[in-house]
Amino acid sequence: MCQLLGMNANTPTDVMFSFAGLSHRADEHKDGFGIAFFEGRGLRLFIDPESARASPVADMVRRYPIRSHHVIAHIRKATVGAVALQNCHPFVRELWGRYWVFAHNGDLKHAPLAQALPLHGHFRPVGDTDSEHAFCWLMQELAKAHADVPSVAELTHTLRELLPRVAACGSFNLLLSNGQALWAHATTKLHWVVRQHPFGAATLADEDLSVDFAALTTPADRVAVVATEPLTADEAWTAMAPGELQVFVDGAPLAGT
Amino acid sequence: MCQLLGMNANTPTDVMFSFAGLSHRADEHKDGFGIAFFEGRGLRLFIDPESARASPVADMVRRYPIRSHHVIAHIRKATVGAVALQNCHPFVRELWGRYWVFAHNGDLKHAPLAQALPLHGHFRPVGDTDSEHAFCWLMQELAKAHADVPSVAELTHTLRELLPRVAACGSFNLLLSNGQALWAHATTKLHWVVRQHPFGAATLADEDLSVDFAALTTPADRVAVVATEPLTADEAWTAMAPGELQVFVDGAPLAGT
Repeated sequence: MCQLLGMNANTPTDVMFSFAGLSHRADEHKDGFGIAFFEGRGLRLFIDPESARASPVADMVRRYPIRSHHVIAHIRKATVGAVALQNCHPFVRELWGRYWVFAHNGDLKHAPLAQALPLHGHFRPVGDTDSEHAFCWLMQELAKAHADVPSVAELTHTLRELLPRVAACGSFNLLLSNGQALWAHATTKLHWVVRQHPFGAATLADEDLSVDFAALTTPADRVAVVATEPLTADEAWTAMAPGELQVFVDGAPLAGT
Repeated sequence: MCQLLGMNANTPTDVMFSFAGLSHRADEHKDGFGIAFFEGRGLRLFIDPESARASPVADMVRRYPIRSHHVIAHIRKATVGAVALQNCHPFVRELWGRYWVFAHNGDLKHAPLAQALPLHGHFRPVGDTDSEHAFCWLMQELAKAHADVPSVAELTHTLRELLPRVAACGSFNLLLSNGQALWAHATTKLHWVVRQHPFGAATLADEDLSVDFAALTTPADRVAVVATEPLTADEAWTAMAPGELQVFVDGAPLAGT
């Protein structure tokens, strides 16, 4: 199983602390890593088939404070598809003039994907993973459902119809963003926390690293962090239920979706 | 005007020497840089709206010897579109299960692009540049011309029909790759050189940096380098003619195309 990390914030925020926590888990998840940062409509994507512990790219990401509203990161333990650059998450496609970023934890083994999620549109996998197949199918179905980029609420409505079809194929913990919102869908394991005023300190669960968010933030800042396992030992993380979809906008779950 | 750099090799080769030469020209071309490396079907894309001289990402690229068969790099001097991440070349799209990488030098001002190169397919620009518009049009027309990924010769034939329509809109020096070949098209300025056995030494035109390729290569290695201006002072670069299209495979121009 891989590990996911997502961040959604109401002000451009770096994820150095959380990415350090994720990287710590890369001993077991050594078959590649990837991290995508939205800056407005633009996107930076860093991927490497090396472990996040050894990769010079991961090292640069840990040291370069890239500030973003939406971040999706993934460390990979290969199950389907070889250890190769084209199999590293997150995957990116363009739809309606926006980049879409997708990372998946789990496997889709219950059904042959070619039958369960047929690809007849123009999105095709480049690599060999079940994850990229599922992403291409989602993009295809979104493209059929809307002529142009819809509102976050409309997209959420459509995703709520589509995601169970993917989840029927196996375990499907998902992070998805188009730079307007961060969607998180769980079937087995995903947790989230919101950091907001009054900010406290937090300590990584896996290593002896603490940060005092109060010293780094303003009272108006708000950040939601989503991860496979809680990254910190002293914050109240919420476990997502099987089949649950959360939408994060401006650093908080969107009400009424 | 921006500056382009392309590399096509018959064995995975790094571009640290050539990228150092390109970066030297970043004082004048300070509005962003980008570099894309194919590794098999996989792709690494590094972009930054910072100058290639100041960017921590460019610094990592200069120090991390990423070996690739196909590289496309670009340093930007903004003409159309703000200095922003979504306007940095190279641009990437997926077509037929392959990534396509595109970088452009020139401007397409002679005709309104919405009329001359209408976008009615599923490829849409994310940023605001005329370059990305032209790329989306090319992908749209390639997708209409072939049902699946054709041979390099067939693709070249189709590009030979399509590229003059873009070039009619202005100046269009282009580098394009899908990981199988590197296409270079010139309307005003593009030069190429092939390095092969017996390898000699080369000195960058802009700074006091030499490399002895004989010490770094085997006799079987062959590398084609394409650049806006010759990067070295002591190699025989070939200037491309207006309207010329060259296809590089395995480090050499493809004969008969």
